[in-house]
Amino acid sequence: MKEFELINRYFKGRGIIRRDVNLGIGDDCALVTVPENCQLAVTTDTLVAGVHFFDDISARALGHRALAVNLSDLAAMGAEPTWISVGLTLPEANIEWLEEFTEGMHEIAEYFNVQIIGGDTTQGPLTITICAKGILPEGKALRRSGAKVGDWIYVTGPLGDAGVAIEARKQGLDIAPEHLSYLNNRFDYPTPRVAAGQVLRGAASSAIDISDGLLADLGHILALSQVSAVINVDKVPVSDALNSSIPRAEQFDYILNYGDDYELLFTVPESNKSMVDMKLRQYGVEASCVGQIKSGEGEIELLLDGEKFNYQGKGFQHFAKEPV
Amino acid sequence: MKEFELINRYFKGRGIIRRDVNLGIGDDCALVTVPENCQLAVTTDTLVAGVHFFDDISARALGHRALAVNLSDLAAMGAEPTWISVGLTLPEANIEWLEEFTEGMHEIAEYFNVQIIGGDTTQGPLTITICAKGILPEGKALRRSGAKVGDWIYVTGPLGDAGVAIEARKQGLDIAPEHLSYLNNRFDYPTPRVAAGQVLRGAASSAIDISDGLLADLGHILALSQVSAVINVDKVPVSDALNSSIPRAEQFDYILNYGDDYELLFTVPESNKSMVDMKLRQYGVEASCVGQIKSGEGEIELLLDGEKFNYQGKGFQHFAKEPV
Repeated sequence: MKEFELINRYFKGRGIIRRDVNLGIGDDCALVTVPENCQLAVTTDTLVAGVHFFDDISARALGHRALAVNLSDLAAMGAEPTWISVGLTLPEANIEWLEEFTEGMHEIAEYFNVQIIGGDTTQGPLTITICAKGILPEGKALRRSGAKVGDWIYVTGPLGDAGVAIEARKQGLDIAPEHLSYLNNRFDYPTPRVAAGQVLRGAASSAIDISDGLLADLGHILALSQVSAVINVDKVPVSDALNSSIPRAEQFDYILNYGDDYELLFTVPESNKSMVDMKLRQYGVEASCVGQIKSGEGEIELLLDGEKFNYQGKGFQHFAKEPV
Repeated sequence: MKEFELINRYFKGRGIIRRDVNLGIGDDCALVTVPENCQLAVTTDTLVAGVHFFDDISARALGHRALAVNLSDLAAMGAEPTWISVGLTLPEANIEWLEEFTEGMHEIAEYFNVQIIGGDTTQGPLTITICAKGILPEGKALRRSGAKVGDWIYVTGPLGDAGVAIEARKQGLDIAPEHLSYLNNRFDYPTPRVAAGQVLRGAASSAIDISDGLLADLGHILALSQVSAVINVDKVPVSDALNSSIPRAEQFDYILNYGDDYELLFTVPESNKSMVDMKLRQYGVEASCVGQIKSGEGEIELLLDGEKFNYQGKGFQHFAKEPV
């Protein structure tokens, strides 16, 4: 299939049409309008076959996941997702695969009211690079650098599910089918916490999405905010599936140190805590208060049932860890 | 090298700082401000090793080229380049290679006053996807769809040089060293015609950059504008190097049908012709009037020294042509 046919068939004229897109796919550039008094938020994530996903991942899941991880970054900034550009490198133009892949991508794009405004399709080893754009009111972004001593530390959703799914495939862990199905779904179809991010705008003091693991990503907030933290490990939410599948002693690696869940980690000043708790409940966002910001230079103190907990681990590094 | 070190060392804190970048590399998203009454232009191009460039291309040239092809799309839209996001997939973190690659990219970014606001570095087969952003006054974009019957057809620069450079490497053509050096430079370090694009804003009726070949790219303008064209092949500018290296009968493939020069093709209404000619000269842009828009349904009539010229060819298609 020729490049133009491919783009016309699978991307152009499909999906939602936003009014702020003045010119979509089909010219040298797309043209869009950013509303007055809004900033543009921009993020880019690349997924590489064999590194960021298993070779046998379903095409639909891959289309979903490739976009979800980008929307997660916009969520962590408090931005409203608007437009994406898709760089898709494929070994061959397999019709069935493309149909499923673009279906998975269009589904999540439509759910979050995001328009695919352009991209590039090329031949080569399977790689997907998405540049996602969003908008947010001037000065309202949730940065990593705003955490202050005394702020409460929250996470959304349960953590560790995606990690268990990955290890189950790598090591063949013994997991009950109904749990495995849930865990695989968490890895294949992560939900970017877009609503949570928008609820937290103007209320949270900092935010980040958990792609590299709770400790690693908390570390980024602490470093940029020049503070330390205490985390109550027993307060970190885990799913029934994870809890039933992994012995407690082995759970910590997953909930503290594995990424890929794409939940949000954020800090809330005491003065906003009750308002944030209420708003999160209103929007149906599951979030747990797991610790507090302390003064210090980036140290993370872990408590388990009130006792000091010694755990050593480090987050995911693309050039240090074995590919998935 | 860890991903964070890599980004910190080669991207963060290097290159120019634009005032409209509110938050650069280092958070979940970058934040930028689009000026009032301006549209945002967005384009994405992917380069894959072995498909879009030779494996032995210098890292510096690759860094330049990867950005140049994106800036060329902004130029073709009449946009002022502002910010880019870089998705860089590398087999390994080779220090010397990265130093040269980023040097090549920073050089051209600085020349065009473009800031690298983010991206993603991942491990995998060498692939570069850049999403380039630019701004332009509302309603002033140079679209492909605006060519009208009677408009004059122009191209910038000489055409075909990059194609000869590619074939010289593939076939080992017999070319004098001084010419080969010029031709290779045209392929390795293409110059996006950014100034030309901005000069043409509000004056040209349509524009496109020549990435797939003069005939193929003219075909896009004709299809979207619903017109036909006549091209005086003998008016298409060729370089001394190409002219001295390739017999006349073989030149047509290069100047009509090979892309990769990243010159601009544009149409100008008769009423704007003398003004455009003057402005292009003022800005030192070499451009040649090579034909005229006719009524019709996308046909291209070729004339050579005033006589009908029969030439059949088709443009570059990523899934149809042998990789470079």
